Amino acid sequence: MDALADLPVDTLLELAGVFFAALSGGLAGVRKSFDVFGVLVLAWATGLGGGVLRDVLIGATPPVGISSWEYVATALAAGLVIFFFHPGVERMRRTVIALDAWALAFFVLLGTTKGLEHGAGPLASVIVGVLTGIGGGILRDILVGEVPLVLADRQLYAIPAFLGAGVTAALWSAGLLGVATQAGVVLLVSGLRLLSLRLGWVVPSAATGWSGRWGSRGRMGL
Amino acid sequence: MDALADLPVDTLLELAGVFFAALSGGLAGVRKSFDVFGVLVLAWATGLGGGVLRDVLIGATPPVGISSWEYVATALAAGLVIFFFHPGVERMRRTVIALDAWALAFFVLLGTTKGLEHGAGPLASVIVGVLTGIGGGILRDILVGEVPLVLADRQLYAIPAFLGAGVTAALWSAGLLGVATQAGVVLLVSGLRLLSLRLGWVVPSAATGWSGRWGSRGRMGL
Amino acid sequence: MDALADLPVDTLLELAGVFFAALSGGLAGVRKSFDVFGVLVLAWATGLGGGVLRDVLIGATPPVGISSWEYVATALAAGLVIFFFHPGVERMRRTVIALDAWALAFFVLLGTTKGLEHGAGPLASVIVGVLTGIGGGILRDILVGEVPLVLADRQLYAIPAFLGAGVTAALWSAGLLGVATQAGVVLLVSGLRLLSLRLGWVVPSAATGWSGRWGSRGRMGL
Repeated sequence: MDALADLPVDTLLELAGVFFAALSGGLAGVRKSFDVFGVLVLAWATGLGGGVLRDVLIGATPPVGISSWEYVATALAAGLVIFFFHPGVERMRRTVIALDAWALAFFVLLGTTKGLEHGAGPLASVIVGVLTGIGGGILRDILVGEVPLVLADRQLYAIPAFLGAGVTAALWSAGLLGVATQAGVVLLVSGLRLLSLRLGWVVPSAATGWSGRWGSRGRMGL
Repeated sequence: MDALADLPVDTLLELAGVFFAALSGGLAGVRKSFDVFGVLVLAWATGLGGGVLRDVLIGATPPVGISSWEYVATALAAGLVIFFFHPGVERMRRTVIALDAWALAFFVLLGTTKGLEHGAGPLASVIVGVLTGIGGGILRDILVGEVPLVLADRQLYAIPAFLGAGVTAALWSAGLLGVATQAGVVLLVSGLRLLSLRLGWVVPSAATGWSGRWGSRGRMGL
Repeated sequence: MDALADLPVDTLLELAGVFFAALSGGLAGVRKSFDVFGVLVLAWATGLGGGVLRDVLIGATPPVGISSWEYVATALAAGLVIFFFHPGVERMRRTVIALDAWALAFFVLLGTTKGLEHGAGPLASVIVGVLTGIGGGILRDILVGEVPLVLADRQLYAIPAFLGAGVTAALWSAGLLGVATQAGVVLLVSGLRLLSLRLGWVVPSAATGWSGRWGSRGRMGL
């Protein structure tokens, strides 16, 4: 626990985000009757896959998602928790959705910032920031043989992510990215996500336009 | 429009290629009833995904497919066109197939050349050149949950691409890659592609050997 | 043949591993009625895809899987063998499974070592070592539209790989990685894999726990 105590607060927050994202990945594996190794791989891919894609795209190799003990152990721990206690996690559906909204916000903020600090430029940084937030879920869905939920289910998930990444890049360019503005970005992204869920806001699809309602499956497959 | 006017001719041609490739991606999303964000992601992945794979494989990070405003905006514009006007685009099926053959040729030529200029060597450059041409379509098919059409439908699509990439690498090695020979490569690839379509040439599959005929689905899913 | 004669023994062994892994990829393509190009792509992706992922993740671009004539030609040769002689290969099912266990061991040993020598650190090297061994099969399954077998079928495939990668990294760190210990790693991984097959050892899945028996499909889809 000494090692944990030495970690800065934002790393602890990011590890918490990895944990909650990895939970949804492990759960997708449990539902597909994957074996314990498959559940761990899905937890890892969902919790850390977005960051791995980011690091490969900006040339920051090896990605922290495969080189950092804290990150890898956190994702695998979530996979083990799901493997042994998945009925309990399924009952906490609402809690997990709220935690996932917060993890999305945190991933987007940190992913965009890492791109900018690595010299990737504002556009590429916004894209890898969004990818940090949504890439893990896309990998999860491809690995279990499903069409990526984020592309089809009309919920506001990518839009808060893009908004947060854009605001982060603008603040960074203006030299205004500090603790307070970072907290503002997290509130903006997670707040918009949760507000859209509560109010039933959707984006249009080509088939239905603006009408229609929520699909029966929630964002995280929960 | 001033910004566009400053672009060299070959960049304008490449952007046109991105646009036509992205159209087929957006259309695949519309057919799967993806939401507007999913359609834009598919347009981006199909128009620029092959180049992103190329740049990651040769170490040219961040890839132009995420760092260049012109490229990203072009792919997204194609996605919006498809989202709002897809019935009209579907009616132009023959035109889009012809434009796609030309985009394939252009992607292969430029992808191979970029590999060579980046020092990737002739074999790797030929492979990333082909991947620039066909990678976007493979990503598109995986994201919509289909088996990649280019691997299964027996049409001559990859073969013109390999031929064009090989000729490009040979010309480059011989110091003969100029405007005239580049035009020749584009004519060779797109001509062979369109000729094979008109004459019904197919490659064998293990199941049917050389017999059989076209599948009912066209190359671009159009 | 002179060129082959100049290759060191371990490269010849690795090429043999690529060949056997690529066989399983080509066979998956034949079963899906892919055309000859699709069969070659699947052979290449299965034989060399794990190494390509490894090289991208550790920043060793361009990956040997696209830049080395020996590797690419070996994978494509396996694809051609499968395309023309697949009924014969299917009859050698038991032989191919044994050869695949040995190829897995060799890929894990060499993949982990390459990561370590490239400065990727022990954790990342273990992960890319495992990925070298199992990544090709995952790519194969995604390209043919199947859920990756290694994640779901409860066989001991990834566990011997992880064990072998961990032992390799430990030996390397202790300065003990020589010909004898490398042979020991190969024996450990392939022996554990084959022993588990013979004795019917499985890992638990969330659905069935430790009970149940082998699925009807073998590891390599053979």
